[in-house]
Amino acid sequence: MALPDLESLRELVNVRLDQLVPMGAQGGPAAAARYSLLAGGKRLRAIITLTAARTHGGKLETALDAACAIEMIHCASLIFDDLPAMDDAALRRGVATVHAKFGQDIAILAGIGLMNGAYEVLAKAQHTTEAQRLDMLRIVTRAVGWQGLVHGQALDLNSGESDAQIDAIHEGKTGALFIAAAECGGVAAPSVSEKDRRALRSYGRALGFAYQAFDDVLDQVVCDEAAGKTTGKDGGKSTAALGGEACIQSGTALANKHFDQAVKAVGKTAPLASLAEFIRRYFAATVAAA
Amino acid sequence: MALPDLESLRELVNVRLDQLVPMGAQGGPAAAARYSLLAGGKRLRAIITLTAARTHGGKLETALDAACAIEMIHCASLIFDDLPAMDDAALRRGVATVHAKFGQDIAILAGIGLMNGAYEVLAKAQHTTEAQRLDMLRIVTRAVGWQGLVHGQALDLNSGESDAQIDAIHEGKTGALFIAAAECGGVAAPSVSEKDRRALRSYGRALGFAYQAFDDVLDQVVCDEAAGKTTGKDGGKSTAALGGEACIQSGTALANKHFDQAVKAVGKTAPLASLAEFIRRYFAATVAAA
Repeated sequence: MALPDLESLRELVNVRLDQLVPMGAQGGPAAAARYSLLAGGKRLRAIITLTAARTHGGKLETALDAACAIEMIHCASLIFDDLPAMDDAALRRGVATVHAKFGQDIAILAGIGLMNGAYEVLAKAQHTTEAQRLDMLRIVTRAVGWQGLVHGQALDLNSGESDAQIDAIHEGKTGALFIAAAECGGVAAPSVSEKDRRALRSYGRALGFAYQAFDDVLDQVVCDEAAGKTTGKDGGKSTAALGGEACIQSGTALANKHFDQAVKAVGKTAPLASLAEFIRRYFAATVAAA
Repeated sequence: MALPDLESLRELVNVRLDQLVPMGAQGGPAAAARYSLLAGGKRLRAIITLTAARTHGGKLETALDAACAIEMIHCASLIFDDLPAMDDAALRRGVATVHAKFGQDIAILAGIGLMNGAYEVLAKAQHTTEAQRLDMLRIVTRAVGWQGLVHGQALDLNSGESDAQIDAIHEGKTGALFIAAAECGGVAAPSVSEKDRRALRSYGRALGFAYQAFDDVLDQVVCDEAAGKTTGKDGGKSTAALGGEACIQSGTALANKHFDQAVKAVGKTAPLASLAEFIRRYFAATVAAA
């Protein structure tokens, strides 16, 4: 199976996101949200949603608003995570973080607006049935909530750093939204079985862990400029605690284990498997170049 | 028409809210959310929703989850507003604000969890149809979004204090959620017309302005202890700028004008009209006792 055309999918998401968030007043919350949301990014979660829908015979148009909503949630979570009271990061994707540029008050409102906007988009999602919209809303709110992103970030704030805790942090901070991204894609398909949905959730979970393992490696080995964000804030966590070559090797091994699980969950011939392999190669090349 | 049994309605909302937010870990986001959400409060917005549903022949059980979701959103907005980057308030309802007690990081996560939880509750609202749930979701996300609470709070942050700006701030910060509260109640009723919904929105808007006018008066005349929150943070705004007796008189006159409009919107015999009159008397008595 050929690799999905990632550039086309990314551009599709970018164009739709541009439609979904208003310009707003200069220096206001909507402008700050757009600054962060439209600054780039891999759109990995959105691409998972779109690819999952296609894998199960769904149309891109049915999955597109869910894909965008998940990117909006992800963007909101980055804005909140970067705040001084959280990770206190000055740089993100190579430019000033939202609070550094617009102030903390506007950054918080931008985050709220993006979260709320994501749910508004889901409640109005184009080319979907009422049942699909509500299904997606339940999936995404579960991913964000007390047992999802909010939980993962809270654990991260006062983590003791046992392996079990680190897994729980990654499950919440990264895994939950990857799982939701994959499952929402399935919901957008015309007739996805409960077994398919379970496989999609396993895929999302494994890919989330793989992504996080590689991100930890990159966080350790790449300097501020190359990574485009303030690094070292997550220092002392997970494989990053090992440092140097050992860190790269053990992190890569861990990521590969999870990539293998992701591929296994959906079967080698699925477009989702090609996507997992592409991400694996992308990260390996990035680490090698660093 | 007899006044709705406010104490019963309030207790109903409190019991359901207690079910809707998990206990969570000690000192964590859910615990912080419960600390704020279950500390009391008039539950005015929820009571509006429940009373609006009844006015149009709806059942309480159909409107209850929407009423609770709106209180969760309201509570989240208070947590965010109290943050050091916003109003920097140490007290709320007579006790320490969430960030003062749990830290800013946990307070932000509690606010996110409550917002997200509200949408989860709406997406799963008991005893409603899919169409009702999506209708309520669209109403509430519009109220919170770029033209609602987020907009009102952003205007408030750098307000020049013209009358038009103050109205826009109040429309966003208070009116938007009152409007949503009233309209969601209508949606919970079996067959509410577009004309009814328009009347409910007018009612909510007028009641929101009336509430805000009285709140400004109270903010000026009541000292910290009696008001149960850090006062003076909104100083210099609206009628509060006048100070003293003139402030009380002009603020009361303004509130009465809006109360009259609220009653007019729904008709004198509606339970909602009784509710507006009750709130009017409650505030007048509170101001007189101060």
